[in-house]
Amino acid sequence: MTGAPLRVGVLGAGTVGREVVGAFLDGDRAARLAPADGRPLRLAGVAVRDVDRARSAGLPDALLTDAPAHLVASPDVDVIVEVMGGLEPARTLLLGALSGGKAVVTANKALLATHGPELEAAARGSGAPLRFEASVGGGIPVLSPLAADLAANRVTSLRGILNGTTNAILTAMAREGTAYADALAEAQAMGYAEADPTADVEGHDAAAKLVILLRLAFGAWVDPTAIPRRPAVRDSASLGAPGITGVTAEDVAAATDHGRVLKLVASGRRREDGSLEAGVLPTAVFGATALGSTDGVQNRIEIEAEPVGSVAFAGPGAGGGATSSAVLGDLVAIARGGASTWAGLPAAVGRWDGGVSAPAGPALAAPSGACYPLAE
Amino acid sequence: MTGAPLRVGVLGAGTVGREVVGAFLDGDRAARLAPADGRPLRLAGVAVRDVDRARSAGLPDALLTDAPAHLVASPDVDVIVEVMGGLEPARTLLLGALSGGKAVVTANKALLATHGPELEAAARGSGAPLRFEASVGGGIPVLSPLAADLAANRVTSLRGILNGTTNAILTAMAREGTAYADALAEAQAMGYAEADPTADVEGHDAAAKLVILLRLAFGAWVDPTAIPRRPAVRDSASLGAPGITGVTAEDVAAATDHGRVLKLVASGRRREDGSLEAGVLPTAVFGATALGSTDGVQNRIEIEAEPVGSVAFAGPGAGGGATSSAVLGDLVAIARGGASTWAGLPAAVGRWDGGVSAPAGPALAAPSGACYPLAE
Repeated sequence: MTGAPLRVGVLGAGTVGREVVGAFLDGDRAARLAPADGRPLRLAGVAVRDVDRARSAGLPDALLTDAPAHLVASPDVDVIVEVMGGLEPARTLLLGALSGGKAVVTANKALLATHGPELEAAARGSGAPLRFEASVGGGIPVLSPLAADLAANRVTSLRGILNGTTNAILTAMAREGTAYADALAEAQAMGYAEADPTADVEGHDAAAKLVILLRLAFGAWVDPTAIPRRPAVRDSASLGAPGITGVTAEDVAAATDHGRVLKLVASGRRREDGSLEAGVLPTAVFGATALGSTDGVQNRIEIEAEPVGSVAFAGPGAGGGATSSAVLGDLVAIARGGASTWAGLPAAVGRWDGGVSAPAGPALAAPSGACYPLAE
Repeated sequence: MTGAPLRVGVLGAGTVGREVVGAFLDGDRAARLAPADGRPLRLAGVAVRDVDRARSAGLPDALLTDAPAHLVASPDVDVIVEVMGGLEPARTLLLGALSGGKAVVTANKALLATHGPELEAAARGSGAPLRFEASVGGGIPVLSPLAADLAANRVTSLRGILNGTTNAILTAMAREGTAYADALAEAQAMGYAEADPTADVEGHDAAAKLVILLRLAFGAWVDPTAIPRRPAVRDSASLGAPGITGVTAEDVAAATDHGRVLKLVASGRRREDGSLEAGVLPTAVFGATALGSTDGVQNRIEIEAEPVGSVAFAGPGAGGGATSSAVLGDLVAIARGGASTWAGLPAAVGRWDGGVSAPAGPALAAPSGACYPLAE
C-alpha cells in the first residue's frame, strides 16, 4: 500500500528543525520515514532565516529558501513541518497551509494555545490533518495516546511536570540549597534556560502545554492567560510572583522538612458541575513519589481516567533529538493516512468561556509567605 | 465521516469481557464508542461458556450465545474481540476471523507469543486489522505508542515490570520480610494470584508479553520458550528456579542491604552483531529509581531509542476496568479505519531463529546461591 512520495517542507532549522532535516539526510534514519503501509516521506525544502548560515552548517543548498511562504504555497510540497516557533508568521503560514489542504505538523505550543480554535477550524474546514505531538512533553508520546489509545475513557484529571527548565532549576535548588537567582544563572550557563527566561520561569510555557492537554482531555480550548500561575499568599488578598520566580531557598528547605519537594505542577480537572479547575503552580509533592522524583529536565504527565485508572508517561521533555522523534512520528502518521491529533474526539472550535479556578485544597505556608498546594 | 455501525462480537465474559460489554450497555460510556471521524461501534453478540450464568449476571439474553464460532462466522458481526484466553479454541477462532476479513482485537498474550507468526500471516493475507494493545501492560498505552508514535526511532533496548502478580509478591516480601510461600498465599487470598500461579510466578506471562514487545521493537517473533527465566547459580553450571520461585526472604534482605530491591524484570536488547539478548529474571534494581519504586500490581515499561532517548509508560498492568480501556481503544482505532498494531512497521512473519542470550553483566550473588543481574 505504498504510493507517491509525500513531500515535506520544513519551516525553521533551529535545534529541532536541524534534527528533523538530519533524519531525512541520513540513510539509516530515512529508511524509517517510509512506513510499510503508507507513502514514503521526502524532504522537499527547508525555510531558514539565513540561507548562508544554514549552508555553512551543512544543509543542502538545493533545499534551502528564506521564503517560508513559498514552501507553504508550492505545488511541490504536501506537508508543512513548523518548528520555527513564535506566533507570527507561524500563525499565518499554518492557516495558509491548512486552508490550502496541506497537512501540518507543529511543535509550537504557544501558537496552539493562543490560536487553537482558529487552527482547529481551519483544519476541519479543509479536512487537512494537523498534528502536534511534539508540542507537549518533547519526545514523550502523550497526546496521541490520550486522544486515541485512551479514547474510550472519561478523563477526570491530569497533572504533570511539563517544563524542563524550571524543573532543572528547582532540582538544583533542592539538591544544593541554591538561591533561585543562582540556580537560574547556572541553568542559563548550561544552556537549559534562555537569556530571557520569562516564558519558562513565569509558567507561560507550561500553561500553553496545559491548554493543549486540556483541549484533548476535556474538549475545551482554555485561554492560556486564564490559567492561574501565581500562588496564594498568606494573610493577603493579592497573589505571589508567577511560576517559580518567587520560590526561595527557605521555601525549598521548608518543603524538605515535610518530606516534600517543590515542583512546578501543571494540573487540570473537570469538576462535577462542569467547571474547570487548572493551574501551573509550585506545588509541594512527596519526594518519594514518581512525580516528586522527576528531576532535572525530565517531564512526566499523569492522567486519571475511567475505566483505566492512573497512567503515566515520562521522558525527555525537550532537546532537538527527543522532540524530533515526535515530529517524525507525526509525519509517519500522516504518511499512513492518519488524521489530526484530535480527530477521533468531538470538535472544540470556540474558546472556553466557563472560567477557570485555581486548584483548591491544603497548602504549605512557606517562609516567603507563598501558599504552595500540597499534592499526593 | 460516519457510516454504518461496526458490529462487535465479544468472545468471553470474564473479568475483562464483562467490562467491555458493560461499556456498550452504559449510555455515557457507549457515547465514547462513536468516534467523531469513524463508524459507531455496536455490540452484536457475546459468546460465553455458560449462558444461564451470564444471564443471571445481568448480560442481555438476546446477545448471548455459547457458540463462539457462530459469532466468528456470522455475517452480522464485523469485529471480533477475544478476551477468552488460552491457546485453543482462541487460535482457531481468530485465524478464522482474520482469514474471513474480520478485524480482531485481542488481549491474549499467550496466544500472540505462541502463534504470532501465524496470526500475523493471516492478518496480512486478508488485510484485516489485528490489534492487541491490551496484551501488554493492561490499560497502559504502550504498544501503539511504540509501533506508531515512536516509529521514526531505532529501539536499542527495553525493559519493564510486566507482571503485577509477581510484583505484588516481591513488594510484600520487601516490605514485610515475608517468605515467598507466605507472600504467594497472601496474594492468592487477596485475588492477585491464581490458584495455579505457575504462569505468573515462573515468568511465562511476562515472557509472553516480552515476546510481543520484542516483535514491535526489533521486528522478530521470538519463541517464548527461548526467553531465559532462570537466574544463574554461583559455582554451578545449572540454573536456578524459574521466575521468582527461588527468591528467598534472605535474598530480598541482601538486596535491601545494597539499597536495592528485587523485581522480576523483563528486558530485551538487540546487540551490535544483530543477535538478541533477552530475559525475564529477578533483578536487583536500585530502590530509589522509578523502576525500583514500581510497587504492587503496577507495571512500568521503559524504552531506549534513538533519537528520543529514554521514555517510560506506567500504570495498572491488570484488572478488568484498566484492561478494557485498551480493548475499547483498539475498537475505536478500528472504527476510525486504523490498521494492525504493527502495520506501519516491516513484516515479521517467520519465527526468529537467531538464538536468544540471557542478559550478561554484574550480578548480586544472593544467599540462596542465585545470581541476580544488577540493573541501573
